[in-house]
Amino acid sequence: MSDPSAPATRSWADLSGPALDAALSERSIAVVPVGAIEHHGPHLPLRTDALIAEAVAFAAVTRAAASGLDVWLLPTVSYGKSDEHYWAPGTVWLEGTTLLEQLVEIGRSIALTRARTVVFVNGHGGNVMLLGWLNRELRRRFGLRSFSMSAGAGGAGDGLEGRPDELGQGIHAGFAETSVVMHLAPGLVSPDLPPRNVPERIAGLRHIGFNAKPVMFGWTSDDFGPTGVIGDPTGANAAHGRELFERGVAFVADALAEIDGFVYG
Amino acid sequence: MSDPSAPATRSWADLSGPALDAALSERSIAVVPVGAIEHHGPHLPLRTDALIAEAVAFAAVTRAAASGLDVWLLPTVSYGKSDEHYWAPGTVWLEGTTLLEQLVEIGRSIALTRARTVVFVNGHGGNVMLLGWLNRELRRRFGLRSFSMSAGAGGAGDGLEGRPDELGQGIHAGFAETSVVMHLAPGLVSPDLPPRNVPERIAGLRHIGFNAKPVMFGWTSDDFGPTGVIGDPTGANAAHGRELFERGVAFVADALAEIDGFVYG
Amino acid sequence: MSDPSAPATRSWADLSGPALDAALSERSIAVVPVGAIEHHGPHLPLRTDALIAEAVAFAAVTRAAASGLDVWLLPTVSYGKSDEHYWAPGTVWLEGTTLLEQLVEIGRSIALTRARTVVFVNGHGGNVMLLGWLNRELRRRFGLRSFSMSAGAGGAGDGLEGRPDELGQGIHAGFAETSVVMHLAPGLVSPDLPPRNVPERIAGLRHIGFNAKPVMFGWTSDDFGPTGVIGDPTGANAAHGRELFERGVAFVADALAEIDGFVYG
Amino acid sequence: MSDPSAPATRSWADLSGPALDAALSERSIAVVPVGAIEHHGPHLPLRTDALIAEAVAFAAVTRAAASGLDVWLLPTVSYGKSDEHYWAPGTVWLEGTTLLEQLVEIGRSIALTRARTVVFVNGHGGNVMLLGWLNRELRRRFGLRSFSMSAGAGGAGDGLEGRPDELGQGIHAGFAETSVVMHLAPGLVSPDLPPRNVPERIAGLRHIGFNAKPVMFGWTSDDFGPTGVIGDPTGANAAHGRELFERGVAFVADALAEIDGFVYG
Amino acid sequence: MSDPSAPATRSWADLSGPALDAALSERSIAVVPVGAIEHHGPHLPLRTDALIAEAVAFAAVTRAAASGLDVWLLPTVSYGKSDEHYWAPGTVWLEGTTLLEQLVEIGRSIALTRARTVVFVNGHGGNVMLLGWLNRELRRRFGLRSFSMSAGAGGAGDGLEGRPDELGQGIHAGFAETSVVMHLAPGLVSPDLPPRNVPERIAGLRHIGFNAKPVMFGWTSDDFGPTGVIGDPTGANAAHGRELFERGVAFVADALAEIDGFVYG
Amino acid sequence: MSDPSAPATRSWADLSGPALDAALSERSIAVVPVGAIEHHGPHLPLRTDALIAEAVAFAAVTRAAASGLDVWLLPTVSYGKSDEHYWAPGTVWLEGTTLLEQLVEIGRSIALTRARTVVFVNGHGGNVMLLGWLNRELRRRFGLRSFSMSAGAGGAGDGLEGRPDELGQGIHAGFAETSVVMHLAPGLVSPDLPPRNVPERIAGLRHIGFNAKPVMFGWTSDDFGPTGVIGDPTGANAAHGRELFERGVAFVADALAEIDGFVYG
Repeated sequence: MSDPSAPATRSWADLSGPALDAALSERSIAVVPVGAIEHHGPHLPLRTDALIAEAVAFAAVTRAAASGLDVWLLPTVSYGKSDEHYWAPGTVWLEGTTLLEQLVEIGRSIALTRARTVVFVNGHGGNVMLLGWLNRELRRRFGLRSFSMSAGAGGAGDGLEGRPDELGQGIHAGFAETSVVMHLAPGLVSPDLPPRNVPERIAGLRHIGFNAKPVMFGWTSDDFGPTGVIGDPTGANAAHGRELFERGVAFVADALAEIDGFVYG
Repeated sequence: MSDPSAPATRSWADLSGPALDAALSERSIAVVPVGAIEHHGPHLPLRTDALIAEAVAFAAVTRAAASGLDVWLLPTVSYGKSDEHYWAPGTVWLEGTTLLEQLVEIGRSIALTRARTVVFVNGHGGNVMLLGWLNRELRRRFGLRSFSMSAGAGGAGDGLEGRPDELGQGIHAGFAETSVVMHLAPGLVSPDLPPRNVPERIAGLRHIGFNAKPVMFGWTSDDFGPTGVIGDPTGANAAHGRELFERGVAFVADALAEIDGFVYG
Repeated sequence: MSDPSAPATRSWADLSGPALDAALSERSIAVVPVGAIEHHGPHLPLRTDALIAEAVAFAAVTRAAASGLDVWLLPTVSYGKSDEHYWAPGTVWLEGTTLLEQLVEIGRSIALTRARTVVFVNGHGGNVMLLGWLNRELRRRFGLRSFSMSAGAGGAGDGLEGRPDELGQGIHAGFAETSVVMHLAPGLVSPDLPPRNVPERIAGLRHIGFNAKPVMFGWTSDDFGPTGVIGDPTGANAAHGRELFERGVAFVADALAEIDGFVYG
Repeated sequence: MSDPSAPATRSWADLSGPALDAALSERSIAVVPVGAIEHHGPHLPLRTDALIAEAVAFAAVTRAAASGLDVWLLPTVSYGKSDEHYWAPGTVWLEGTTLLEQLVEIGRSIALTRARTVVFVNGHGGNVMLLGWLNRELRRRFGLRSFSMSAGAGGAGDGLEGRPDELGQGIHAGFAETSVVMHLAPGLVSPDLPPRNVPERIAGLRHIGFNAKPVMFGWTSDDFGPTGVIGDPTGANAAHGRELFERGVAFVADALAEIDGFVYG
Repeated sequence: MSDPSAPATRSWADLSGPALDAALSERSIAVVPVGAIEHHGPHLPLRTDALIAEAVAFAAVTRAAASGLDVWLLPTVSYGKSDEHYWAPGTVWLEGTTLLEQLVEIGRSIALTRARTVVFVNGHGGNVMLLGWLNRELRRRFGLRSFSMSAGAGGAGDGLEGRPDELGQGIHAGFAETSVVMHLAPGLVSPDLPPRNVPERIAGLRHIGFNAKPVMFGWTSDDFGPTGVIGDPTGANAAHGRELFERGVAFVADALAEIDGFVYG
Repeated sequence: MSDPSAPATRSWADLSGPALDAALSERSIAVVPVGAIEHHGPHLPLRTDALIAEAVAFAAVTRAAASGLDVWLLPTVSYGKSDEHYWAPGTVWLEGTTLLEQLVEIGRSIALTRARTVVFVNGHGGNVMLLGWLNRELRRRFGLRSFSMSAGAGGAGDGLEGRPDELGQGIHAGFAETSVVMHLAPGLVSPDLPPRNVPERIAGLRHIGFNAKPVMFGWTSDDFGPTGVIGDPTGANAAHGRELFERGVAFVADALAEIDGFVYG
């Protein structure tokens, strides 16, 4: 399974059912990219999160397969839980319960194969907690080993690192995400970047915040201004985006290796 | 809107929210491909239906846009209602109610834009009745004009025409579908085609049947044999597949034109 | 079981539980009429669809029993999926999901008897796709053989044949349906028939249409005018209604015979 | 509206939508019989509860209309919440949530007419609490005045009075119910009546019991023996049944009059 | 288990899982208080029903344990089905379906222990029918013996006896309930008692009424006036409240003894 | 509102509806403790999480009120999302969807008062992601400002700090939680503490882990050994528990102050 010249066989759905059935074993890892189709400011495409999740997952699966892991990439779940951007025309969002049920059923189907492990590579911060919830459903109901991670290298939100002056709040269409899309799909990024929109007052709070702070709060993206941006896209560039992308791929590939050897307890 | 050199702008999710918002009008048509990831015999890839729906929809939207229609392609809904193949490892299926709710919510988001029309281009026979139901939900709840059609040229099932000796029952992984995949993705078709599997007794019935017969019946694909094929893939070829594909694209493009001018009553 | 003088024993619910249990065998066929209570123009009763479904099912079961089939008639499900007439006072409609769940549970109960076959005889076009979906649920979940058919002789909508100048669109309260109610319940038909209301423009379309055309579309009956009629009731008469009714009964009875001998594959 | 020679106009669904719309006023009362299709011992038909509910409701509506009330009879909801008899072949039962949702939707449709009052005439003890719950849903959500009552004269269970030696526990297929069916449908009652089956120990309890006792308890009918009877059908006779039936009709008709004049507060 | 000096061990959730597991047997009875947080006029606290349910259940369990019963008190379900008071700020209510599902899941967990019996001690009239429904769910689905009763001594509503001139309608924040809260939590009762608010016209009706009358009706508490009181709190006093409370405790304790010895049939 | 001598008025449900209505303003903050009833090893009570959430919330609300905040404490939601302990007798758990819906409905009721802010103080790590999801529902659907935080001082899981040799994995019934219960309810802690049970291999992983690590994974507590403990309770003591408790109270009180002044953007 370590032949890097056969990436096509890494696609679950490229195979026929019997061929997949023959290929899968208890060691197989099913990887499902999960994205979103949502407003990302006036400069990034609506499919930013689906694009990043799919690109990172594809590259990481390819790399992991090349290193001998028995990984399989499933079709991307493009539509996500984007209720925080429901107000913005173009956003196409699912209720959390609908997305959760869809993913539970995808897990249920995977559980009927020999594969015992499923991994969700996620491009959208708004999906993170749903995926954490999902992991436990799949473990309890179907006995799967289920993992979720962001397509970036970080542990929260979309996992993409921002600029220091984003104050840890470059979580949506900011420096990092803009840079990554510039790298992956430069033609889809508008040259007119919107201005910095960092909720500085929140950044200065001790407890309340977006990630890594101990008090979570409900918000929709129009709570912070009309552009829907949270962060600072100015100065974003493809070179930085490439670096972030590579870091994300390395992280996911490395995590897949860790998952391969994972045992509870 | 008739500039054929700008196909990228035909992708809903390639645009930013504000750019899409500016581009859409009451005349805009949102096109959503709907597929399935399901067992298609030992010779066709699991993503056959998603592949065909997406390929036909993309080509038809491109053609329709070139002829001046204001059409927009949304990301494919890859996972479908494949409960008839639930028994076959590799099938990844959603409960009908989950898929219906997902599509209702996609329609709800579209209804919040200026676009008033949505079209589902479907690659999977098992989705057909759900989409008919869906059209009415979107009409009643959100006032949308909602249409569904098969990615093939016919009116039932996946709409792909079979061989005469399939007796109108080449509905799954048979001559037509195999030919189309040979055209679209030859590398994904196994050269070892499974034998003909046509439920001849059913073909000889007067009332009960798969399509176009007046009595519908519940079945799962293993009711007709172990391969899951219903039809006869032998003799399938890319040339015929190309012809069917082109016919499907022409049909969908032509239907989009009809939809563009559609008025009730 | 071929004694035509005992039609009462053809009623599932006329028997006691133990008597029914003793009478049923693996060959038994449970028949469930499904109707609707909905606006049918200013001239037909709201229960038109329930009336026709029940009358046809009763007569067909009686005839089938007389010819030796082990058929059983269950109480009519009167309220249907009439969301297309939600706007018209008097319509009493169920959400599709509620009707589907009700019918799944009816099937579940039937599956706990010795009978392995269930047949839905349907009087309402708006139920057709739901019943097709239902058949598969009952097959997959409970292993039943499940069939659905229209109470008329046709294959789509309510299955009643219209007049040629209805252009295939006499689907609701038109020539055929009005004639059948004139035959079955002449006292319930208003002598003041509403005028012809045929969506001629749609009839002229190549792809989009009500039945037998390849593009389905969402509509509510007020999309075509204030009467809710789709078709042409003028000239309807009981004699023609009788002929249509007899044809429907013959069709259902014949279909029941086919079902009796049905084997998959 | 007090012409007793026109009972047909008392049927909601016999009228066309516009005719009904013209006939209804704020004083109109919509009456919905609710039954069950469930095991009633070896001697009574499965449709006992639907039969009684419909017969009583029809007679009471006729009588009430004759006395000048603006009452309307809707089609019977035949299938009820019979989970206590789920174990007995022939029972066709709905989950409580499914029945509740169906009745809420029926109420919703009624609320879209001029009628402001709905009455559920119930033939099945197992529906009682669901209907009490339902009344409040219809009041709060749609502003309806909603009432429920048993088709018998009593206040609990199916409301039919039993024999003294049934110890207040003749609640299912016992003396009263058997007598009523002997009156209404003598041909459907088996001459071989099952023996008395009264849970005497429970009758002797101070707190726990079926009706009118302060502690409710969960049971299924097989908890009390294999026949599913709770009570004593021996000695049941049509004459007594007629008396009970007349009492039930008088009760419902009288209650309808009270409802007609009902004001809150 | 009859040591009255160890009341703490009567609390299910005070024990560790293994300690509880060791303590439970087939004879164990799990008691769940169910209340409501809802408007109780201008003089009683919102948590009146939760307060009474918990206080009665605690005292009754203590007494029952002292007499040798193996009873266990679970944490109170404070939020109930208070849709009749939805209009009053401060009411915190659950949809009936949400509360039912919650209680079914609580029963499901109890069914996974050795205990086979669950008892719901209820402080809120609006929960009564839901609990009756619940009992059957727990019996059918999990084989539990499930009982429900009011925390007062009566059999309907909240079971607290009123004053004669409340005409059997002192069902909410009237003489009895006000007295009990004066006894249990005098500091929470406003000295300014609202005036008598008894729907006298309804009291005079023959069929329609709140409890013990044969016709149930839907109402919200603002149907009877702006205070939300139904009854007459004037003259309420702690001495009477104490008597009622003691009567309620005695009733529940006695009922628990009956439950301990309960056998079906 | 800053009179510390009136803590009783800090209880939402101790007041009558009208009194609460008069007391609430747009500045009011509704605080809802959320716990769990679940296995916490052989030494801690099942209600550990509910106990801590309630105790911390009560103390913090009292302190915040004393400093002039307009905070109100609602009744504790005792039963939580404990699916990871479903296997252990005594655990009483709710499906996530049931708990989420319950909390959404609690928020809906709060939104009908003048209060615009709701805070969930959580004692159970398994509720964390559900509460994050909930915050957004309440923001989007009802316009509330919604916050959630752990009853401990940390940002993840139950927020209680462990011992260094727990390697960041003392997340359930370990050193911190055991110490806090020793402080709050010493009589409920078994003197026989179970041995250390730290999944050291997981601690050594780079990506996968319980909190603060970038890869989340599905687990149930029996995945790590038979005691259900994850951490090391040995050495736990009330003095440390008191310190942790005070830190938690200070954290929540401080967070409430921050919430009081919170503005978006």
